[in-house]
Formats: sequence, C-alpha cells, structure tokens
Amino acid sequence: MKKKEFLLKENTVYKFYYFITKGLVRSFYVDNKGNEKITLFALDNWWVTNMESFVKTTPSTQYIQAIENTTVLYLSKEELDQLYIEVPKLERLFRIITENMLIANLRKTDVFLQMKSSDRYFNFVENLPNFVQRVPQYMIASYLEITPEYLSELRRKTK
Amino acid sequence: MKKKEFLLKENTVYKFYYFITKGLVRSFYVDNKGNEKITLFALDNWWVTNMESFVKTTPSTQYIQAIENTTVLYLSKEELDQLYIEVPKLERLFRIITENMLIANLRKTDVFLQMKSSDRYFNFVENLPNFVQRVPQYMIASYLEITPEYLSELRRKTK
Repeated sequence: MKKKEFLLKENTVYKFYYFITKGLVRSFYVDNKGNEKITLFALDNWWVTNMESFVKTTPSTQYIQAIENTTVLYLSKEELDQLYIEVPKLERLFRIITENMLIANLRKTDVFLQMKSSDRYFNFVENLPNFVQRVPQYMIASYLEITPEYLSELRRKTK
Repeated sequence: MKKKEFLLKENTVYKFYYFITKGLVRSFYVDNKGNEKITLFALDNWWVTNMESFVKTTPSTQYIQAIENTTVLYLSKEELDQLYIEVPKLERLFRIITENMLIANLRKTDVFLQMKSSDRYFNFVENLPNFVQRVPQYMIASYLEITPEYLSELRRKTK
C-alpha cells in the first residue's frame, strides 16, 4: 500500500487479518462532528484488523489507512479457520496475540486515558519511541486526545 | 463470596481466572480524586479476571468486588497453562473467549463512549436489560460516565 492508501474503509466487512511486514498504519473513525479519532497505530510485525468486523462479519465503523508505504501479508477468516484445524498450535499463537491486544486496549482505556494529558504524552514517548519518530504530530495528538497546540508545547518543554 | 466482598484488590497479582456460576461482580479502580470508576460488570456464566495482571503476573490497578452474593469457580495460571497442554481444544475456547472480551472492550471504547450520554443509557438498557435490573443505579452511572442525577432523569423519561 502506498502512503495514505486505505487498507479498509468504514461500513465494509473486514475480511482479512493483516500482518505488517514493513510500514505503519492507523485505525480511526469519524465522529459525529466530522473529526477523525485515531484509536490505534500498528507497525512492522504487528497483526491488525477490526476484530469485531472480522470475527462477526459485520460492517466496521472504522478505517485503516497507511501512514507510510506499507507491505502486508493477509489471511481471510476462512483461511484462518481452516489453519486452526490443520495446525492446532496456531490456536495458541492467536490466543496469545489476542490476549496481548486485549491488554494493550485495557491499558489504554483503564490506565492511560485516566492520566493527565501531559503524562499521557510522556508515557507515550517513553514507551513507544518508534511511533514518536514516525507518526505525524497531529495524529499523535488525536490518539492521545490532546490538542495539537498543547502537544507542540510539551515537545518544546522536553527539548 | 458475600455481597460487597472483594474477589481481588488493587496492587495484588491476580493469580486466578474466575468463572461466575451465579452472581454479579464489578471491576473498578480509584482515580486520583478518590472516585471509584467502574470498568466492567460480569454475571452468571462469564469469565473474569484482570487480564494484564493474570497473564503478566504484575500487580493490578483494579479491584473486583461482588455486587450480589456470588459463586465462582477458578483456575490458576499454572493450572490453565497445564490444561492447554493436556487439552489443546481449550486453546480454541480461550482464544474465542479472549476475542469476545476484546470486542466488548473495543465496542465500549470506540463506539459506546462516543455516543451522547443519553444514547449510552438507552443502548445499555436495550442491550443489557439484566444488568439494569440487578446493578445499583449509581454503579450504572459510574460505568456509563454520566452523573447519577442525569441517570435518574433519563429513567423518569423512559417510564
């Protein structure tokens, strides 16, 4: 995928589970005021899809878009279900991947979003330095639910 | 567990994965202003733990407390890891349970919390009527991130 290309769009069923071999994508939805709200970044060696849409074959409310030129491998739900039967150890792999996705999401919602916005930024910088270098500023601000202006201010403070 | 008894407390490692045979529990944390913030309800036939604490054997930031007298079965991490080896089909079961937990959490964070507070309440009433009957009002208000006063107002409207 070229930079800015959509891997998946809103209102479509996410038929594939993607593995990013190289690159960076974001997942976002558009709120009722028309603002893009970023819910997830994923880069090299991460699996990504919209889990509800993929598992339940329902239309997604989110987009996935490339932030850099990105190369992915992908499996359809049918292929993965067949692989689970042929290679039972894949159940273990995806049980563990899913646990880690759940932990990351719970960490964001139950811990991270309770922090002061400045602490959210410093925590993000400390834990995900790769993202800070590769993701545009305004996208980080959206993900952290802080304004781009405040993010610029925090960046100046840390230099 | 008797009503109000704690299944698990903050700052302890959650050593068990619980299956609720009968009853109702809530998970919550205490924010920096001393307010209880409810993140989860779980009732009959649900699995519950703090996933990060259980999987990574780190101290949890949350409590789990019985809202009603509650009966649970439980497995330790060591027992479950052993069972995965002895009964590989359990990998599938827990892969699917974990997917559903992730979907529920994503639904809450990416869809539900973007709704207007009145829509959150009506959506909750429609989708989880059991909870509305069994969970005290002020706990529902905490979970939905609306004030108890506004929740009372919404209830009057729907009668």
